[in-house]
Amino acid sequence: MDFLTLAQERYSCRYFDTEKPVEKEKIAKILEAARLAPTGRNSQSQRILVLTDKAELEKLSGCTQYGWGAPLVMVICYDKNESWKRSCDGADGGIIDMSIITTHMMLEVTDLGLGSTWVGAFDPVKAKEIYNIPENYEVVALLPIGYPSETAHPSRLHNDRKPVEEIAFYNKF
Amino acid sequence: MDFLTLAQERYSCRYFDTEKPVEKEKIAKILEAARLAPTGRNSQSQRILVLTDKAELEKLSGCTQYGWGAPLVMVICYDKNESWKRSCDGADGGIIDMSIITTHMMLEVTDLGLGSTWVGAFDPVKAKEIYNIPENYEVVALLPIGYPSETAHPSRLHNDRKPVEEIAFYNKF
Repeated sequence: MDFLTLAQERYSCRYFDTEKPVEKEKIAKILEAARLAPTGRNSQSQRILVLTDKAELEKLSGCTQYGWGAPLVMVICYDKNESWKRSCDGADGGIIDMSIITTHMMLEVTDLGLGSTWVGAFDPVKAKEIYNIPENYEVVALLPIGYPSETAHPSRLHNDRKPVEEIAFYNKF
Repeated sequence: MDFLTLAQERYSCRYFDTEKPVEKEKIAKILEAARLAPTGRNSQSQRILVLTDKAELEKLSGCTQYGWGAPLVMVICYDKNESWKRSCDGADGGIIDMSIITTHMMLEVTDLGLGSTWVGAFDPVKAKEIYNIPENYEVVALLPIGYPSETAHPSRLHNDRKPVEEIAFYNKF
């Protein structure tokens, strides 16, 4: 499958088979995609909490409305003490790096026939409390993952993309 | 090619065939990867400056040391007025969304047999001045793209990734 086909196949899956766990081998491949991803100056500040225990998964509702009963949730954090900082303005590359990593995982999830949705709508302060996340870690994204249910389908928004002329401009804006 | 193979093939290419332009059809495919990428609430705030003119490419040295004479550079910006904002704390999703988009482009570049390196080390204030970027746009990344030169090779860091046990933790940190 070429990359554009994979990108087209990915959609935000919000209906999971809540009773069917994701096999260990597939979790390992998703984490391998996270491991291989590039990070600023190869800083590798990613610290991923892999939620598979039912009790831990249930706590998710304390920081977001969006979990959809997925049997696997990745909580993607970075260690502020290890992320790359830009010299000219001190900008922390952590959010960018975690976004690269989460994108890699999301694409591997699709390639494995699983579904996921990137959740940005969560309370990071509550997430840190609920999961005892170290003070020096920042939580960037949640990624619920599972087998799509029989009723899963792309939302209307999925095919509602702007034409390329509205997002790309040659040599000047 | 499965996704993990593609992810493994990608490396930060810093040696380009500076005389060989990237074909229009390939540029269109790279932009299609950017167009298909998911964004927060499908906000699609990406605004990509596609540099192909020699004069515009040469100006790049005013905001970064890293361009490596690539014949194509994507300047990835988002429109602050259109990006998704998180309700609980007002966090702007623009950096995350542009990182998803740039990752998509980087992977499509690899799939097309081209090379690229994500450049985070640039001065965003100078970049905005040089390219007359609208006030309400933020510049998140530069992506020089081209055919790898004969001497191009992955850096030592490419295979220097931490073992998965140091980046992923099951159910608690």
